[in-house]
Amino acid sequence: MPLTPDQEAEIAAQRAAPRPTLRAVAEGLEARLHQAVPVLDHGFVRVIDYMGDDAAIVQAARVSYGRGTRAVQDDAGLIRYLMRHWHSTPFEMCEIKLHVKLPVFVARQWIRHRTASVNEVSARYSILDREFYIPAPEHLAAQSATNAQGRGAALADAEAERVRAILRGDAERAYDHYEAMLSRDGQQGLARELARMNLPMNVYTQWYWKVDLHNLFHFLRLRADAHAQFEIRAYAEAIAGLVRDWVPLAFAAFEDYRLNAVQLSARAVAVLKRRLAGETVTFEDSGMSRGEWREFTAVWG
Amino acid sequence: MPLTPDQEAEIAAQRAAPRPTLRAVAEGLEARLHQAVPVLDHGFVRVIDYMGDDAAIVQAARVSYGRGTRAVQDDAGLIRYLMRHWHSTPFEMCEIKLHVKLPVFVARQWIRHRTASVNEVSARYSILDREFYIPAPEHLAAQSATNAQGRGAALADAEAERVRAILRGDAERAYDHYEAMLSRDGQQGLARELARMNLPMNVYTQWYWKVDLHNLFHFLRLRADAHAQFEIRAYAEAIAGLVRDWVPLAFAAFEDYRLNAVQLSARAVAVLKRRLAGETVTFEDSGMSRGEWREFTAVWG
Amino acid sequence: MPLTPDQEAEIAAQRAAPRPTLRAVAEGLEARLHQAVPVLDHGFVRVIDYMGDDAAIVQAARVSYGRGTRAVQDDAGLIRYLMRHWHSTPFEMCEIKLHVKLPVFVARQWIRHRTASVNEVSARYSILDREFYIPAPEHLAAQSATNAQGRGAALADAEAERVRAILRGDAERAYDHYEAMLSRDGQQGLARELARMNLPMNVYTQWYWKVDLHNLFHFLRLRADAHAQFEIRAYAEAIAGLVRDWVPLAFAAFEDYRLNAVQLSARAVAVLKRRLAGETVTFEDSGMSRGEWREFTAVWG
Amino acid sequence: MPLTPDQEAEIAAQRAAPRPTLRAVAEGLEARLHQAVPVLDHGFVRVIDYMGDDAAIVQAARVSYGRGTRAVQDDAGLIRYLMRHWHSTPFEMCEIKLHVKLPVFVARQWIRHRTASVNEVSARYSILDREFYIPAPEHLAAQSATNAQGRGAALADAEAERVRAILRGDAERAYDHYEAMLSRDGQQGLARELARMNLPMNVYTQWYWKVDLHNLFHFLRLRADAHAQFEIRAYAEAIAGLVRDWVPLAFAAFEDYRLNAVQLSARAVAVLKRRLAGETVTFEDSGMSRGEWREFTAVWG
Repeated sequence: MPLTPDQEAEIAAQRAAPRPTLRAVAEGLEARLHQAVPVLDHGFVRVIDYMGDDAAIVQAARVSYGRGTRAVQDDAGLIRYLMRHWHSTPFEMCEIKLHVKLPVFVARQWIRHRTASVNEVSARYSILDREFYIPAPEHLAAQSATNAQGRGAALADAEAERVRAILRGDAERAYDHYEAMLSRDGQQGLARELARMNLPMNVYTQWYWKVDLHNLFHFLRLRADAHAQFEIRAYAEAIAGLVRDWVPLAFAAFEDYRLNAVQLSARAVAVLKRRLAGETVTFEDSGMSRGEWREFTAVWG
Repeated sequence: MPLTPDQEAEIAAQRAAPRPTLRAVAEGLEARLHQAVPVLDHGFVRVIDYMGDDAAIVQAARVSYGRGTRAVQDDAGLIRYLMRHWHSTPFEMCEIKLHVKLPVFVARQWIRHRTASVNEVSARYSILDREFYIPAPEHLAAQSATNAQGRGAALADAEAERVRAILRGDAERAYDHYEAMLSRDGQQGLARELARMNLPMNVYTQWYWKVDLHNLFHFLRLRADAHAQFEIRAYAEAIAGLVRDWVPLAFAAFEDYRLNAVQLSARAVAVLKRRLAGETVTFEDSGMSRGEWREFTAVWG
Repeated sequence: MPLTPDQEAEIAAQRAAPRPTLRAVAEGLEARLHQAVPVLDHGFVRVIDYMGDDAAIVQAARVSYGRGTRAVQDDAGLIRYLMRHWHSTPFEMCEIKLHVKLPVFVARQWIRHRTASVNEVSARYSILDREFYIPAPEHLAAQSATNAQGRGAALADAEAERVRAILRGDAERAYDHYEAMLSRDGQQGLARELARMNLPMNVYTQWYWKVDLHNLFHFLRLRADAHAQFEIRAYAEAIAGLVRDWVPLAFAAFEDYRLNAVQLSARAVAVLKRRLAGETVTFEDSGMSRGEWREFTAVWG
Repeated sequence: MPLTPDQEAEIAAQRAAPRPTLRAVAEGLEARLHQAVPVLDHGFVRVIDYMGDDAAIVQAARVSYGRGTRAVQDDAGLIRYLMRHWHSTPFEMCEIKLHVKLPVFVARQWIRHRTASVNEVSARYSILDREFYIPAPEHLAAQSATNAQGRGAALADAEAERVRAILRGDAERAYDHYEAMLSRDGQQGLARELARMNLPMNVYTQWYWKVDLHNLFHFLRLRADAHAQFEIRAYAEAIAGLVRDWVPLAFAAFEDYRLNAVQLSARAVAVLKRRLAGETVTFEDSGMSRGEWREFTAVWG
């Protein structure tokens, strides 16, 4: 259970009192505002606030005085055009603010996306909760044999249970010691900013993360991708579901032109053109590296 | 008159239909949303959208689940603390989107603030309007004798009128030629992306500008300052008035700790301490440069 | 002639005195350092400084202690891998600083790339030179009939000459008036920060522009592209030539994976797969918009 | 000993072969290039590369063709002027690239500075070393009684030893388990990207960090400050020593105008002016909050 009753009550209070606004309103996201979408064993993502909707993208691209009178169909066409031609600033005109609870090792990957604003719980100031990410057995996998930075087959049951026991045991012991070092019972009590260094990287932290839609799409393209580590992908997919409800036209264009798109190198274009002309092209004949050829044939056979 | 009746009608339509939202609402800014604040002779600033309010700053700083139950007084104290200690990320959690009409030479100064999103009317795509900034006589000033990049005394009436006549005449002629080059009447008609190069830098352009509160405060500190060129300062002051209505607590802290604050160098601190101890400190004795001493005594006598 | 004899002498002096360094040195760029590459009628690009080389990209990707002992072939393979998989930070580890002289309307497009550092000549402080971009007759084109933001056929000779006469005449008159307003002969003399607004947007300005290799590649992809306006493309191509001499391995990867690459949407992938399977796919049957189909068939027939 | 003999040999090799360059050279930093400055028990900072020197700041501010012929004294004056008036872009024209070895909890504070480029060792790809930060006894302090996010008095010897024993014991056990989970001896072996989550936050990581001088000064102002956590301050001070050798004029201006400067709020200015006029101002009479008054009197008595 990621949320306590008190926290649930605070969220319910936030959802109980709609107020009038003259701003753009995205009905699809209003329906989900403030509510936590569970991720992993103790984490969540929830939307705190947003700015703009599909129409706001169009309005900015046109630098218009009002919301315009064009049909939804025109908006969809323009949004697809903007996405196809790498126009980024109209998508920057939408903004979203999320509250995320996530393990520290995921936070370390996430924070590499620099074009966003973050307020994280400070473990200099606060005492972290006793909550750790322990992967479900089916998410424990062996080192990949072919990809130096990925995972391969799932661990056998016995090994998976050994791993989970280690992770649980070390986390509990580390947290016990964290509390023992902080305690003022019969001792001075270590400063929080020092005691925290004993916690393992699967401890949960929380932050507010605010990002514009263009940079969020970039995040999703990299982190909702099959090459991303499963744990951050779980967050990316939860966020993708929220974005779909927020800006459905822009999300559809993003799926078509980014998420499910294929980038062809000049060499790959040449090979495909030869194939279309009926030629059989072999690896030796392709000008590609082994890795590139493997990736190419995974898509094109 | 910066707005046409059609534009006024579009704005009125936007203000006519409030919708319910579960997001933070800033009443002070709702009252001003969409309406144009006139700046210079043909320019304006108007708020298109915003995210967050004073409470959102506090909420982000606390990474809280709800809006909290603290008193306004506590919020003010925390906001002042955050501003005093250069915490920037809670202020980044508020965002504002403006529609601005401004002369190109002002746009060129403005755009130097890189941490913002901009959609400008494209003169490759559209034909610009025949509108130019012609300074009011009282804003025409001579080159400053002491400050290489500032203005000094106002021009005498006759010289001011000569200048205004030149600016008006050259602008009109340039625009006539712009139209003549674009015309397809009896000729092919020059491409817009080329014809625009004939326009002078006091021609008006428009853009949507979106920025977070932290970066907006930075903009205001530099551009609402007495050293900023009058024309961009006019925009900064119009925006400052909007920000005051949006986040009054944060704006008050900004005024106290940034806009009206004084930065003392280590040398200046030493001089002030000697003065407080009753010593008379002279320029020769201060360790400061001429310029620094002039700026120091302007504040401290 | 973009450079005066004094400027040429300063550049010669900079090239005359090599000094020893323990940093990475790119021989190909040392040969071109400080020298101006002419662009348009009065502009240029010249390299003032740089940091890193191809090996530095590899060294950063490996977070290595030394420069490593791997072969150039390994470096090329790793660089291609990094480019193919959108790793950006190793390319950010190289940096270049350029001195550019360019028309203001080009500068206005250029500055939209925010992830760079710029120092521009200040027309508040300095008096700009009497230099304007007047397009060569063969670069004067009519508005495109199919592309709302592009140019079409070249203008006929007579129209081109009319346009050039207008541009020259208006620029000269505007500059005469600029000088007249600045003059202190028998009058106070208008402040520079005001007088500059009379200058047209084809006046030349200058700046120092510093950018990392990742962001420079992004700039080149957009600005060395056929859709970019000819005038900024001329600068992008001059810079591309310098980058090729600086980091030849990275530039080759950039050409293959970005500049000459093709992005296929999910819909386009589906159409190509059907074609590879021998099917004839029509526009009606493609799921694409008119514009998308036009762009698709331009590449694939 | 932070470096192995192999690493020392690689560094020596890099220092053994100076090469000629036509770029700006900073002698003071050349003398220190590549060499590791020890920080904490196993960490270090070393300069991999740099771009520019004090003269480059001046050259950019003047957008000059050569290095200029002005005296060093003029350069110092201009640099002080630029720093005093918050001109940031000339300082952005210098760049430095560091190789840093640091504990993960320090890395998490550090990475909040977004305007920099980072390549960190990937624990998805590599196995981290068995190295942990164990604070020296004199750096173990109790939670501060007055500052919720700081440390107070040093721990008594016995408590300090208990803490060190816990940190050492937990780190060793966590690392043993890390190796045990990774092992392929009689089991599949857990993926690296998962095993790493068991490591505590005092484990050492490494990265290449590249930043421009303006943003580095901002980092140093916040992290070489007395309010920063001791551990990151240790790194900031090591870097400050390198910057002093690199750009001595800019560093002196930074010390005077930033590091040792005092920011006075409008309220504080008013109080100081009353004091200078001979008045005795009390807290009740100051308009300041308790915290602000405490900070004010700490400087001014």
